Amino acid sequence: MSFLPTTPRLLLGPGPSPVLPRVLEAMTAPQRSHLDPDMLALLDDIRRRLHGLFNVSAEGIALAVPGTGSSGLEAAVANVVQEGDAVLCVVTGYFGDRLAQVCQRYGANVTRLAGEWGRAIDPEAVRTALQHASFKAVTIVHAETSTGVLQPVQAVAALAREHGPRIIVDAVTSLGAHPVDVDGWGLDVVYSCSQKGLGAPSGFAPIAFNAASRAAARSRSFYLDLPLLEGYWIKRGYHHTISTPLVYALYEALCVIDEETMEARSARHARVHGEFVAELAEMGLSLLPPEGERLWTLNTVRIPERVTDEAKVRIALRDTHGIEIGAGLGPLAGKIWRVGLMGAGATSENVATLLSALKQEIG
Amino acid sequence: MSFLPTTPRLLLGPGPSPVLPRVLEAMTAPQRSHLDPDMLALLDDIRRRLHGLFNVSAEGIALAVPGTGSSGLEAAVANVVQEGDAVLCVVTGYFGDRLAQVCQRYGANVTRLAGEWGRAIDPEAVRTALQHASFKAVTIVHAETSTGVLQPVQAVAALAREHGPRIIVDAVTSLGAHPVDVDGWGLDVVYSCSQKGLGAPSGFAPIAFNAASRAAARSRSFYLDLPLLEGYWIKRGYHHTISTPLVYALYEALCVIDEETMEARSARHARVHGEFVAELAEMGLSLLPPEGERLWTLNTVRIPERVTDEAKVRIALRDTHGIEIGAGLGPLAGKIWRVGLMGAGATSENVATLLSALKQEIG
Repeated sequence: MSFLPTTPRLLLGPGPSPVLPRVLEAMTAPQRSHLDPDMLALLDDIRRRLHGLFNVSAEGIALAVPGTGSSGLEAAVANVVQEGDAVLCVVTGYFGDRLAQVCQRYGANVTRLAGEWGRAIDPEAVRTALQHASFKAVTIVHAETSTGVLQPVQAVAALAREHGPRIIVDAVTSLGAHPVDVDGWGLDVVYSCSQKGLGAPSGFAPIAFNAASRAAARSRSFYLDLPLLEGYWIKRGYHHTISTPLVYALYEALCVIDEETMEARSARHARVHGEFVAELAEMGLSLLPPEGERLWTLNTVRIPERVTDEAKVRIALRDTHGIEIGAGLGPLAGKIWRVGLMGAGATSENVATLLSALKQEIG
Repeated sequence: MSFLPTTPRLLLGPGPSPVLPRVLEAMTAPQRSHLDPDMLALLDDIRRRLHGLFNVSAEGIALAVPGTGSSGLEAAVANVVQEGDAVLCVVTGYFGDRLAQVCQRYGANVTRLAGEWGRAIDPEAVRTALQHASFKAVTIVHAETSTGVLQPVQAVAALAREHGPRIIVDAVTSLGAHPVDVDGWGLDVVYSCSQKGLGAPSGFAPIAFNAASRAAARSRSFYLDLPLLEGYWIKRGYHHTISTPLVYALYEALCVIDEETMEARSARHARVHGEFVAELAEMGLSLLPPEGERLWTLNTVRIPERVTDEAKVRIALRDTHGIEIGAGLGPLAGKIWRVGLMGAGATSENVATLLSALKQEIG
């Protein structure tokens, strides 16, 4: 008896998102080793596509950290934050808090600028913080997966540019769906994951450093050190044995994005999100964040009062309907459901399938 | 035009090793998220199989670090070595040196016990070093991939037990092929990779901590911290979004091992290595390490004097015959070829295929 699943599951939780058959099948192409010329050609092509996706110049660098999105988070911090650095961490949810924790682990002197879970931070609060102390870096989460809120990264980045600190941005739930613009917005380090907007399986953390942060990067970590990662991606020296099937899947997923174009892909995410919100409203349901602060990728649905056992609903969706949605995290546990409409999962059909099932379960 | 390879390549280099079709195909099974009950059942089963493979008791822990073998190396060091600790690093090749480097990055006071590249360390040298200073940890590579030498881990572990330091063992090129016995040999932390003896693609670093090292583990790294990894694998709390296809492949590869049994698998590796050496001898070729110190998994073949351009031979094997073998590393560059006969790659047929091609190229 095998434990491998045989029945489908529609992945509409906070990630991983659905993976297209062509992306899954790419993983079974004839395998190559990490230093094979065919592999190096693939890495060059992936790097070129990631440069475009992040919009980072050739003086900067875009590549994929060999781990999940969390390894990208740690790589960003590890290569920028040194022992004793003062860092301002904007914390408006679970992942903003994780960034602050990792900065502390790397010896930073962290100031937390806390905002309400479910709202965007007021850039004026960031301005005030930057005026009252000197920071080496600011951290912010672009798309806060725990609250469904799009944070004002552009405005915060402009303030960082004005006051001096580098800005580290978590784009785990935005890249490949919402616009992200490293050079245009003046971001220093931006990391993401492979399994949400990009539509590949989990296992890579695409990351971009602009020219200045690339030049300054160094880390105590061996595995996550940018110069060593570049030593492999650019100089073709051995550093780690990159995962062949994950490279194939990431490549294929990036090809899908370029075929669709990011403009059309963003528009698709916006449209499907809009359909979902409109149909929710007809059911008397609403999202946690106010209009104008909502992610397209990750929708946090307020659990209506008539639902007394929210876990039972999620389990019924999963076991009766084959659909995964996510639970609330931290202070939002029991208060919201998290519905991901990301990557290949952002379709009108998926909205209809989910809401039809949800109606059956909660009336 | 796609960059995905379409032609096969027989992977007989230092890794990745060939992946069986059933293991590759496992990756395309219906995807599950990192917290799905189906996924958690798989992780429990993988953990059970890894406990058996490492032979580590239930008071210890075996799981898979979400990255390549190098992430396992860093996780081992990060969870054992603290700033200022004295560490004795046995360095008889490239990977012993890498362990020493990572200990230094984590602030250890490293003493290198250097041995000849291509020979096993003399345990008496370790005894002398342990008698003359006090160490928190000893590091040693079981199967030194750069030299093809099996190091005397059992003897060194017995000395560590006698003198007190913990022992960290790199089993990247031994687990799944050579016997490894955490509890039986008194090892504290042992890490490996998924793409060599285990026969899965790269992307996971199976790791085992015995009871004492598990209890003491803590790390500055967030991504590699053992208590946080256990928080996911055991307590089912979110830490990282594990790579679904890599879990499926590792699971399937571990099933293959249990079906074959480790006893038969070790015997197969020993037998195929023996055939390779015997047939090499008929060609007038020999291995770098003396008999009794040789790995079964990774064979370092002395390049004969008549070969004036060794890279040309490797390229011909690859481009004309579709076979990958590896080059020498560091001081052994240009002096040896590295031939992996590991996992699904350890077959008599592969020995014949490679040597037939090699005869055509070097006469």
